[in-house]
Amino acid sequence: MRAAVIHAPKDIRVEEVPDPVVQRPGDAIVRVLLSCICGSDLWAYRGDSAREPGQRIGHEFLGVVEEVGAEVTGVTAGDLVVAPFVWSDGVCDYCTEGLPTSCEHGGFWGSVGSDGGQGEAVRVPYADGTLVKLPAAAASDERLLSALLTLSDVLGTGHHAAVGAGVRPGSTVAVVGDGAVGLCGVLAAKRLGAERIIALGRHQVRTDIARTFGATDVVAERGEAAVAAVRELTRGQGAHAVIEAVGTEESMRTAVGIARDGGSIGYVGVPHGSGTGLDLAVMFGRNIALRGGVAPVRSYIPELLPDVLDGVIDPSPVFDLTVDLEAVPAGYQAMDDRTALKVLVGN
Amino acid sequence: MRAAVIHAPKDIRVEEVPDPVVQRPGDAIVRVLLSCICGSDLWAYRGDSAREPGQRIGHEFLGVVEEVGAEVTGVTAGDLVVAPFVWSDGVCDYCTEGLPTSCEHGGFWGSVGSDGGQGEAVRVPYADGTLVKLPAAAASDERLLSALLTLSDVLGTGHHAAVGAGVRPGSTVAVVGDGAVGLCGVLAAKRLGAERIIALGRHQVRTDIARTFGATDVVAERGEAAVAAVRELTRGQGAHAVIEAVGTEESMRTAVGIARDGGSIGYVGVPHGSGTGLDLAVMFGRNIALRGGVAPVRSYIPELLPDVLDGVIDPSPVFDLTVDLEAVPAGYQAMDDRTALKVLVGN
Repeated sequence: MRAAVIHAPKDIRVEEVPDPVVQRPGDAIVRVLLSCICGSDLWAYRGDSAREPGQRIGHEFLGVVEEVGAEVTGVTAGDLVVAPFVWSDGVCDYCTEGLPTSCEHGGFWGSVGSDGGQGEAVRVPYADGTLVKLPAAAASDERLLSALLTLSDVLGTGHHAAVGAGVRPGSTVAVVGDGAVGLCGVLAAKRLGAERIIALGRHQVRTDIARTFGATDVVAERGEAAVAAVRELTRGQGAHAVIEAVGTEESMRTAVGIARDGGSIGYVGVPHGSGTGLDLAVMFGRNIALRGGVAPVRSYIPELLPDVLDGVIDPSPVFDLTVDLEAVPAGYQAMDDRTALKVLVGN
Repeated sequence: MRAAVIHAPKDIRVEEVPDPVVQRPGDAIVRVLLSCICGSDLWAYRGDSAREPGQRIGHEFLGVVEEVGAEVTGVTAGDLVVAPFVWSDGVCDYCTEGLPTSCEHGGFWGSVGSDGGQGEAVRVPYADGTLVKLPAAAASDERLLSALLTLSDVLGTGHHAAVGAGVRPGSTVAVVGDGAVGLCGVLAAKRLGAERIIALGRHQVRTDIARTFGATDVVAERGEAAVAAVRELTRGQGAHAVIEAVGTEESMRTAVGIARDGGSIGYVGVPHGSGTGLDLAVMFGRNIALRGGVAPVRSYIPELLPDVLDGVIDPSPVFDLTVDLEAVPAGYQAMDDRTALKVLVGN
């Protein structure tokens, strides 16, 4: 089959790889209909995250089950399914507690020896714990299908940030980061009842989507000026719930700066850099909490799926460029150049 | 009157200072019966926290109201009262939300221009927001009175850590720090229903108190060895709720290391050092939350007071040395030498 392979920074190729086969009785083979490129894929692309030459790439996909191992009972050939960005056994302590990202048998698509989402098919370990069945009718609705694909990562990750930030009905929320995750954070905050949502961002295409998703205010400033602008909007107090969807020291500093005393930062931006950006003395004096991390999106799908199916939320506008599998390298280029927000890959 | 005054590191003297008087209509004058020395007072004593020569010191006290300003309605002359370590107006947004440590009119005893707890009397600003009335009968019970004094700081701070750590009935809790706050963290965790409480400490006098307070296990190791020991006790997983009551980078590293995936660190150790001890990449991957800060003890007194009065909890064993006011300098010396855990000052 054809799949995207990363050979070196800036060197992603779509090439022939072995067809996946059922190796263990809990495996399923999924024929990919849609996948996409994540902001975190760009780190591998840019060489900021190490990869062995020849690793697969892509961790968000949705498709049709082609074959299942002897022990799989939850899905069957022909089912439309979405996969979260981590596979998990569904039965260990962590999975049953809602933290499948800490599953003792879990793993990431594209890790050495595993398939990636950006390819024609994927071998899915622990299919019963990992895959979530979708209504077959969705397969014929392109817009809906792309919305459902966000359940594999960005929507659930934005939701995790909103939960970590403690968003409640009536909350004032500030969102640091105008990428797809930050935008999904806006959508998730709105869904959880936030009254006021301040989106920090300077790219109008993105902040326009933020407004569509529920942002009531946009702050284009950065750093200290952004902190001042958010405080200006909040009677000097800051936002009780802050979503941090970037992961740099600067963005974390901004998040701390715009948080209201007693508030919480829900952080889902994968940490970059050697420092943290956290001024613990400030956080201590002001009782600012930090909650978040790699999002256990598998646990959130049952809650979010009905709202996506019913159109209560529509995250599909985060995709602003669609390419076919062979054009995946051009998709990376477009995201790296910031000419695309998030690239959808249609097989 | 006589009061403790800090002139320089290691130079605390008890000397004559002006008698406090009502300056504003919300003030009260409290004649101090009991005060004590806090681990955080030692930082000023050691020169780790800057003080202007001549500042008062001490932020934990309990006494009898001597006089009140014209606007004070909640307490009256003759009332036995306890003061939290921060005064607060009781009416601002933060006070009404339970975060009096962020009160816009709040302040710390012993800050420049204010009285300290280690003295014969204290002018209390915002007396109605700050002071909490105690039953008069408690004044004749020395043990109970010392237990009630812990409401001014260490008991409420230990409780804040336990709340931040997310202690619930059945929780496994680990406590980093065997000082008075760490020990009160053990007591608070037990009170909140923790099933297993692992106290980290190597001073048997202290770990014996921890056991009295509810610790089920004691780990004497430090650093990596402590992490290994706690994991050994918890099927390799760590503790869901970790109380961090030291504030050094090393103690925070230990706290992160012993936290279970998806768990929370309730931190109340005032941060020392230029770094944080937080490995954000580890916290991110394992979804470890950080919640805490300067404890809003005023808000916790209504919840904790009945249990202290009823003897459901007895924090008084944290005091292992009693001195009179004139001997306060010797009390600092004893705590600095670690020959005393926490020094009670009886006027």
